[in-house]
Amino acid sequence: MAELVDIANLIRMAEESKAAFRTLSNSSNEARSIVLEHLSDSLVNNNHTILEANKEDYSTAKANGMSDAMLDRLLLDSSRLQAIAKDLKNISKLDDPIGETIETRLMDNGLSLEKRRVPLGVIASIYESRPNVTVDISALCLKSGNTCLMRGGSESINSNLALVDAIHSSLLEAGLPQSAVQYISNPDRSLVTELLGLKDHVDLLIPRGGDSLIRFVSENASMPVVTGGIGVCHTYVDAGADIDMARAIIINAKVQRPTVCNALDTILVHTKIAPQLLPLLGKDLSEHQVELHCDQSSLEILRATSPDIILKEAVHEDWGKEFLSLVAAVKIVDSVDSAIDHIAIYGSGHSDAIVTEDNESAVRFLNEVDSCAVYLNASTRFTDGAEFGMGAEVGISTQKFHARGPMGLRELTSYKWLIRGTGQIRG
Amino acid sequence: MAELVDIANLIRMAEESKAAFRTLSNSSNEARSIVLEHLSDSLVNNNHTILEANKEDYSTAKANGMSDAMLDRLLLDSSRLQAIAKDLKNISKLDDPIGETIETRLMDNGLSLEKRRVPLGVIASIYESRPNVTVDISALCLKSGNTCLMRGGSESINSNLALVDAIHSSLLEAGLPQSAVQYISNPDRSLVTELLGLKDHVDLLIPRGGDSLIRFVSENASMPVVTGGIGVCHTYVDAGADIDMARAIIINAKVQRPTVCNALDTILVHTKIAPQLLPLLGKDLSEHQVELHCDQSSLEILRATSPDIILKEAVHEDWGKEFLSLVAAVKIVDSVDSAIDHIAIYGSGHSDAIVTEDNESAVRFLNEVDSCAVYLNASTRFTDGAEFGMGAEVGISTQKFHARGPMGLRELTSYKWLIRGTGQIRG
Repeated sequence: MAELVDIANLIRMAEESKAAFRTLSNSSNEARSIVLEHLSDSLVNNNHTILEANKEDYSTAKANGMSDAMLDRLLLDSSRLQAIAKDLKNISKLDDPIGETIETRLMDNGLSLEKRRVPLGVIASIYESRPNVTVDISALCLKSGNTCLMRGGSESINSNLALVDAIHSSLLEAGLPQSAVQYISNPDRSLVTELLGLKDHVDLLIPRGGDSLIRFVSENASMPVVTGGIGVCHTYVDAGADIDMARAIIINAKVQRPTVCNALDTILVHTKIAPQLLPLLGKDLSEHQVELHCDQSSLEILRATSPDIILKEAVHEDWGKEFLSLVAAVKIVDSVDSAIDHIAIYGSGHSDAIVTEDNESAVRFLNEVDSCAVYLNASTRFTDGAEFGMGAEVGISTQKFHARGPMGLRELTSYKWLIRGTGQIRG
Repeated sequence: MAELVDIANLIRMAEESKAAFRTLSNSSNEARSIVLEHLSDSLVNNNHTILEANKEDYSTAKANGMSDAMLDRLLLDSSRLQAIAKDLKNISKLDDPIGETIETRLMDNGLSLEKRRVPLGVIASIYESRPNVTVDISALCLKSGNTCLMRGGSESINSNLALVDAIHSSLLEAGLPQSAVQYISNPDRSLVTELLGLKDHVDLLIPRGGDSLIRFVSENASMPVVTGGIGVCHTYVDAGADIDMARAIIINAKVQRPTVCNALDTILVHTKIAPQLLPLLGKDLSEHQVELHCDQSSLEILRATSPDIILKEAVHEDWGKEFLSLVAAVKIVDSVDSAIDHIAIYGSGHSDAIVTEDNESAVRFLNEVDSCAVYLNASTRFTDGAEFGMGAEVGISTQKFHARGPMGLRELTSYKWLIRGTGQIRG
């Protein structure tokens, strides 16, 4: 068990992270990829310590009355470690994001400008629960030449420390500094507040967790923060939709995994298609025990046609609510404009979809809905780094600044301008 | 004279800015460019009101004892308005940054992903003194489909309001909402604090001004902030430098405009070239009344060879200091490594240069110095939006997050993911 981290230690760790960054940012893609390969192998071949540590967390959490859903998120077993190991191999094989020439310009005075992609620096993350996040964040930071300072939830402390030990061994084998990945093991929340003040040491802070953690971090951090994770997701079924496609998309977006940010919250239905669609949807969703909070018009149709579904009259708070459960709001709208307006008012800029065969409606929705992911004829559940081909994600940004949507390797980079001259001076 | 803005008004303005953004973000490049063309013409043909307003600011400032340098920054005359008008024509002709497809991906499940460039949203700026900043910020925001809320210094209030009137007329002529550009006319600082809290309305805040303004804004803003403007700029003369080139670059970087952020602050000289370079540099810089704060070794050489220059022994605070005047620090280093280390410790991540004919030193310096602009054989004075071909700049970012270096049109954009499917659901 690692020593507790106090405030003086935290500053020392941040300084070591900054020093390690100079090494990492000038290391080769080969060296950085080898760390992930080693780590991947060790999670498969040498997982006894990690599984033992996870057992300890699991039994403590169970004794403390953690819910079954949360216990399942906490659990590591051989097959889950194998899945993590496979993700690591995939990330290690992704193109090196570092050193890419994004743009070149030759100015009239002969100066040659190169805009080159570089790592961001020291990335701190405060997150909750799932231990695989420890590996995802470390792997994406290392592959992109960044260093990281992590602090996970106290319920997974032993699992996280065992995983970080494995990461340290892999760094050592690859000849890179172990301080490139560091874990803050103190459960005391005052240390988080201290971390939020280290703007001279930390270049970016990524909180992952519930609404209150995100809000606390974004209100108190002195450095840039990527906020996200809150998804009030709409699916709009246009007059020109294929009804069976709309049904399949809505069921998937609502029930496949209702507790995550890209799950469906509000169904908007064009008035022309509502009489056909809603009775079928009522039947579909009742089979999955979904409860619907309906506006007056949709309530009338559903009450008359869907005896098995749980219906409530929607209250104002239902619009713009992230349900994170088997509940959805339903509203009938008279046009694609009304759907776009509703999303502009109540959306959270995460993921919104239109189902339609009509090209004009599709183009208007895709152009005008201002969210990080806007879908035509697909489930909003795809907003995810792995699904977008990024290997994994450090989080999903719903802000427009720096990165939007799933954040993979490239979203952990910055750039610098290199200017080559032959003695140019400014007149 | 416009009405004063109170807090209720400020929130209303921010809401109008957000509403105008929906129009702007879906407007054509033609409409947005026409605003700048109209404005350009009106600054040349119809400048009486603006010049009168500027005279009022100027005489008030003079009566209040403003320094000549500051008065010069405040002054507008026909030729300065013509220069601003010319910049506007240039910006209007730049490629449309909006709508560009940055990247496409076709996933194995048939989903087609498009990463498309979009405007950022509502951009607020708090700035000081020079009235041309009002036009620069408005023009770059409008061309890139953003709306802006501006608050300039109280000393230029009449000039700024007259310029904003001209912008409003141009917006009206182009059929775009006047609320796309709004000016906060209340001199009360409490309103600034209020503005910093409007994170649900303002997507980005850009402070431009002195150190204390930048610090106040970045510590108190609830929305993302681009910080910058502080430049501790180094020029390192390597053993393999062309001595005459080094002299020309150093003189230019130090004396051509010493009060700006990209002016030279510290001269680092390789020990092998110091005995030849420093006596010549002492002579050069003494002709421009430059004062040098020297480490022990450089002080000995300069004392022995340069009777005319003002010399002081450097104190610790001289390293990492932005002088903003005809003062520079001088240090002799034994290698390119020592130069890179010195800049890592004392630099501000703005602009740093190496002068050398040696390729290995050049590559190491360009790769390893972690600043927004790293120069080989050129003056650091070129770090500027116009010099980088961006037409103008809303500021220079020294942070690594989102944008680095001069911020022009593209740096005022975000992106969104458009995902087109044929009924895909997640398994």
